[in-house]
Amino acid sequence: MILLDGKALFQKIKLDLSNEVQRLLDENKKAPHLAAILVGDDPASDTYVNAKMKACREIGFESSVFRYPNDVSQNTLLDKIFEINDDDNIDGLIVQLPLPHHIDENDITHSISHKKDVDGFHPVNIGRMVLGLPTFLPATPFGIVSLLDEYNIETSGKKCLVLGRSHIVGTPISILLSRNTRLGNATVTLAHSRTKNLDKLTMEADIIIVAIGSPNFLKSSMIKKNTIIIDVGIHRIESTQTKSGYKLVGDVDFNDVQNYVSHITPVPGGVGPMTIASLLKNTLYSAKKVIYSST
Amino acid sequence: MILLDGKALFQKIKLDLSNEVQRLLDENKKAPHLAAILVGDDPASDTYVNAKMKACREIGFESSVFRYPNDVSQNTLLDKIFEINDDDNIDGLIVQLPLPHHIDENDITHSISHKKDVDGFHPVNIGRMVLGLPTFLPATPFGIVSLLDEYNIETSGKKCLVLGRSHIVGTPISILLSRNTRLGNATVTLAHSRTKNLDKLTMEADIIIVAIGSPNFLKSSMIKKNTIIIDVGIHRIESTQTKSGYKLVGDVDFNDVQNYVSHITPVPGGVGPMTIASLLKNTLYSAKKVIYSST
Repeated sequence: MILLDGKALFQKIKLDLSNEVQRLLDENKKAPHLAAILVGDDPASDTYVNAKMKACREIGFESSVFRYPNDVSQNTLLDKIFEINDDDNIDGLIVQLPLPHHIDENDITHSISHKKDVDGFHPVNIGRMVLGLPTFLPATPFGIVSLLDEYNIETSGKKCLVLGRSHIVGTPISILLSRNTRLGNATVTLAHSRTKNLDKLTMEADIIIVAIGSPNFLKSSMIKKNTIIIDVGIHRIESTQTKSGYKLVGDVDFNDVQNYVSHITPVPGGVGPMTIASLLKNTLYSAKKVIYSST
Repeated sequence: MILLDGKALFQKIKLDLSNEVQRLLDENKKAPHLAAILVGDDPASDTYVNAKMKACREIGFESSVFRYPNDVSQNTLLDKIFEINDDDNIDGLIVQLPLPHHIDENDITHSISHKKDVDGFHPVNIGRMVLGLPTFLPATPFGIVSLLDEYNIETSGKKCLVLGRSHIVGTPISILLSRNTRLGNATVTLAHSRTKNLDKLTMEADIIIVAIGSPNFLKSSMIKKNTIIIDVGIHRIESTQTKSGYKLVGDVDFNDVQNYVSHITPVPGGVGPMTIASLLKNTLYSAKKVIYSST
């Protein structure tokens, strides 16, 4: 069994990106700049934003966090987004989700200029992905294909099963892996809560992407030998085996499947770091105007 | 075997739409207006545009065709598109494809305002479809789900196989049928030229959408009993059985499969008319500002 080590690849990508930053500075250009909007005081959101900003600092990107209280008005957020959209000094903008219930998440994320949408959530970027045009790929799917690429995993002609049809992972990764590109060309089935006979589908798949948000869901009894597994889930569950009293697990029962698979992502240290890596890559692409020629 | 009669449903939709036009006129509103840009003198393109314009006249829509010679410049077309984008009198705009080689089809179709993109080809509309937001659904996939709906074909939990991953049919219908909506919730597999063991997939599918552009490709030996088949192909092949010396066939060998299937679209008279029906429906939605509140 080979571990698909997202943490190690993240380090490698950060090194590449810091070299790119140095090249930009050598050409008297400015470093890429990622801005984040963070609302409220959810500890998980705080942790995620901090991890992204820390990664920016490590590779020499500029970064900004704009924090707002939980009762901020939607208009205040929109005004800030429009200001950043027009700010030539900022290349990428993310709004950490979830947002408080009085805020419309679609209104907010879709008001970010698609030219600074480094999370790849904007309809324009998703539509361009479907059409095979240059775009900011959604960060988690982009991270998954980068990981498959790093480990030279052939996807062409392979039966690929995606479990879960969320807008930010399941649906876009199913599209990406189907496209006629070097990292696509798989025969993809998208399964979800209404899917029947799921065990038959998991048993036949060469590659399974699990993104259903259910701890330890996928078991060895459901898969064939030498399957390649990407685990997008991350859950904090109670544990008597750790000092902290909890441990992190994915949507896959890692201990149960590890001797049956050919490759698998660990949790943590698999897909998670790759999502941040993609965000940084998209921010560089924005600064270098690789996807869109002007902001 | 039940024929999925697109021609009959088209007549029914035209009746509904002409009643809608009458209601708009009774409210002293204007009739919906569909404009088409037609370049060159390809007979097939001419036929398609004429069929669309004829349908408009039949239901009381206004219609305009702007014709250009084969050597028209891209800028001339773009200027016309921008003019129509700003024309409050026109609700929907289509550019008949294919375009001459010196014209960039993406540049042209993506310069149509997404608020008048009644073909549903614009990245914004495709992205919004993926995200489950109100949108102009791409005309052929929209026609297919309307036909399934008309015949009360249950898609939820069904194994659906889409053959062909084109941007205008295969890829979007695979997304539409996967979504968590009344006409979706199918477990969809998208197959294409790199797919292996296709016969196994066709044999297991409850619903097969065939859009690969290969005459008489799907045979009875490839499917199980009582499959539901949607045939998107249309080909003109030589025939000694007709006066004209040719006949129209689909991607499915109709004569061969007809006794094995539970439902099937004929060619012609299946998906083809439904594509025009969708175009008209989208034009009405545009006139009534159902999808986007302003133009």
